[in-house]
Amino acid sequence: MVAARGLCLYACPPIEQGAGAFCVLIIKKTTLMARLVLKFGGTSVADLDRIRNVARHVKREVDAGNEVAVVVSAMAGQTNKLVEFCREASPLHDAREYDAVVASGEQVTSGLLAVVLQDMGVNARSWQGWQVPIKTDENHGAARIKEIDADFLSERLSQGQVAVLAGFQGISPDNRISTLGRGGSDTSAVAIAAAVKADRCDIYTDVDGVYTTDPRIVPKAKRLDRVSFEEMLEMASLGAKVLQVRSVEMAMVHGVRTFVRSSFDDPDAPQVGNGGLPPGTLICDEDELVEQQVVTGIAFAKDEAQISIRDVADKPGVAESVFGPLADANINVDMIVQNISPDGKTTDITFTVPEADYIRAISVLEDNRGEIGFQNLEGATDVVKVSVIGIGMRSHAGIAAQCFRGLAEKGINIRAITTSEIKISVLIDSAYTELAVRTLHSLYGLDG
Amino acid sequence: MVAARGLCLYACPPIEQGAGAFCVLIIKKTTLMARLVLKFGGTSVADLDRIRNVARHVKREVDAGNEVAVVVSAMAGQTNKLVEFCREASPLHDAREYDAVVASGEQVTSGLLAVVLQDMGVNARSWQGWQVPIKTDENHGAARIKEIDADFLSERLSQGQVAVLAGFQGISPDNRISTLGRGGSDTSAVAIAAAVKADRCDIYTDVDGVYTTDPRIVPKAKRLDRVSFEEMLEMASLGAKVLQVRSVEMAMVHGVRTFVRSSFDDPDAPQVGNGGLPPGTLICDEDELVEQQVVTGIAFAKDEAQISIRDVADKPGVAESVFGPLADANINVDMIVQNISPDGKTTDITFTVPEADYIRAISVLEDNRGEIGFQNLEGATDVVKVSVIGIGMRSHAGIAAQCFRGLAEKGINIRAITTSEIKISVLIDSAYTELAVRTLHSLYGLDG
Repeated sequence: MVAARGLCLYACPPIEQGAGAFCVLIIKKTTLMARLVLKFGGTSVADLDRIRNVARHVKREVDAGNEVAVVVSAMAGQTNKLVEFCREASPLHDAREYDAVVASGEQVTSGLLAVVLQDMGVNARSWQGWQVPIKTDENHGAARIKEIDADFLSERLSQGQVAVLAGFQGISPDNRISTLGRGGSDTSAVAIAAAVKADRCDIYTDVDGVYTTDPRIVPKAKRLDRVSFEEMLEMASLGAKVLQVRSVEMAMVHGVRTFVRSSFDDPDAPQVGNGGLPPGTLICDEDELVEQQVVTGIAFAKDEAQISIRDVADKPGVAESVFGPLADANINVDMIVQNISPDGKTTDITFTVPEADYIRAISVLEDNRGEIGFQNLEGATDVVKVSVIGIGMRSHAGIAAQCFRGLAEKGINIRAITTSEIKISVLIDSAYTELAVRTLHSLYGLDG
Repeated sequence: MVAARGLCLYACPPIEQGAGAFCVLIIKKTTLMARLVLKFGGTSVADLDRIRNVARHVKREVDAGNEVAVVVSAMAGQTNKLVEFCREASPLHDAREYDAVVASGEQVTSGLLAVVLQDMGVNARSWQGWQVPIKTDENHGAARIKEIDADFLSERLSQGQVAVLAGFQGISPDNRISTLGRGGSDTSAVAIAAAVKADRCDIYTDVDGVYTTDPRIVPKAKRLDRVSFEEMLEMASLGAKVLQVRSVEMAMVHGVRTFVRSSFDDPDAPQVGNGGLPPGTLICDEDELVEQQVVTGIAFAKDEAQISIRDVADKPGVAESVFGPLADANINVDMIVQNISPDGKTTDITFTVPEADYIRAISVLEDNRGEIGFQNLEGATDVVKVSVIGIGMRSHAGIAAQCFRGLAEKGINIRAITTSEIKISVLIDSAYTELAVRTLHSLYGLDG
């Protein structure tokens, strides 16, 4: 598949709603000039010196002949301060007012970066979410982008003006400021890149790319030059904190080539080292992967809790009686394991929920004990989900068996297993996290 | 004249442009219910405790059955911090970006006050300048309000919803955030009051009203219960810092009854004491003044500097040759005195400029010495302008003579004099400020 960048925002369904939003127009650029979206997070714009550093990155791309849009977060600490103000004002605050207060952080940064760029002789202006406009749904505080009318923005980019966009925000159907939820600036950047048909979206962050696993646990972890959208989506969902899951989903749906790199690199250093790109990780379509490894990385998530319901009746509707009330309580359920019952009468159901929701989930289930009809409810919070991810798994047998054998040889007990086409996840005791991750990293030949 | 509140924003000229904006519709309310605009400055919303205090003032008015719009400034210190950010980013920053950065302060306060009001059970929402919209000209950083489309806002007020408006800001013709210049929230409040046809605009400030003169200089100064628009305009222009001059101008043009009161009053205290109003000063049309004193107050302005040009040719065009270059340099000239020349050949011109512009003004005049053709240029910054203000002066002779005699008796030399229909201003040595103000305050029977 070739990345489709001819995105129709008007004719297609809402751009966060899936693969239906593609058009078949495919554009191949032959010149060196490219249209880029650069995204800088809160630590990269924490003070004016860092904002000046960001401006040097931007200027370098402009001087190279590129059309540039920049998406910025609030200065580090500012969003927390504004959120705290809202909490102090009222624990049950109106999400629309929360959005008006909190979105001001990005507004400040966008204006300041535009000023600094102008001071360096770069033609630049700021854009607030409502000015573009970036239209979202009415779900204030965690809004989803529905549509971006990027014609005017795109025209300005074509004229060589740098657009500095306040990330994390848009405008809701009732003409109020909306925010996309914490970390939403990544999503803003990818959505803007899709809307202006950018050649690449560069996410400048405090790490220099995506690694095979967490280097703090496995010092031999390697930075990946390229990783597919699907793999990155699994890695982001499974605990790698580099990118927001939603932004990866959106990049995948719209084929936005996304490049993760460090904002602490010298802006004036030569931009080479990674197949025409500077050091970093390109998240792209499978076609663009140069050499394809079977396993790309090992992810782990410690913030999960396990719940097991013993001896529930094995009859239609029992799963609904368990998961319906949890969904009503807005508790996300992740792994679900239900085995065929040995006696055909009762069975056990095991699943995981975010650790933060554990107490609440247990209480919801106890409240529904009558409906569900279980004998026994067990749980554990000292668990970790370790996942082996690789697009090559689809065509290679035996990857799962290799994983189970490797863990067994180290005496690690597996509590539950779930798999997808490109990943295997196991739930184990959290005491074995490091051992399991190192074992698997080495087992699949990822050690550098 | 009766205050005309049937203001046509569409049919009339821009609302900051003068008396042409009146319509002749006059509405007299007979019920107790009123539509009020309340304005709170930065010190009144400096932290969440103070914001809660503001909310109690608002709730009291709502509980009394009034329709309420609130205009808020940024939390004390916040605007200075944001201005400093812009200066640090670049001394020559783009005013449009400055506006985007600086307007965020009011955005935060409006959201927080709405949250606190909701927490107290008051139906409230925030409004940004661009949401109303408050349309301004394109003069970013010191924009003037052109038009307010208040239909939607007004409808919400009628439904009993409190509107919390971010002061100091609007939207410019190019869809960018504009600000009205420092202290612009007073102007926002009066403009909103005109647009929604409010019965009164209450300015909550850190003083409890307008005094006959500065109580720090004359301890016997009295608070005025009522003062006419014209008098307040002179007093605001002449050094009384209670209200922005522009806001008084606008109140006068649109007949907005404006009430100055303290934000530190107990919100739950009985609201009586001043002819149906709580303690404070009502700025209103002359008709509403109960008893009319000849002299209402004594104002003084220390930030003036005097410049005298000696021996210029007394011929047509000489004034233009002096004041043209000063206007081009954007220097405001205040008092101008030119006497009939004794010999018909040369004359002296004396005038005042803001002390901050004194050095620049001298330099502009020296640069134009050839054109103007003067012999000698003199100046002084240790001067003060003392003004006697009173609407009753129009019908009472001898007020000026009384002033000159009073000052002469104390041995105070008058450098220059200017008068209008309702005021007399004298320029004297600043060392005599206190003596002159106390003498005049007592002379006109203002001592409490």
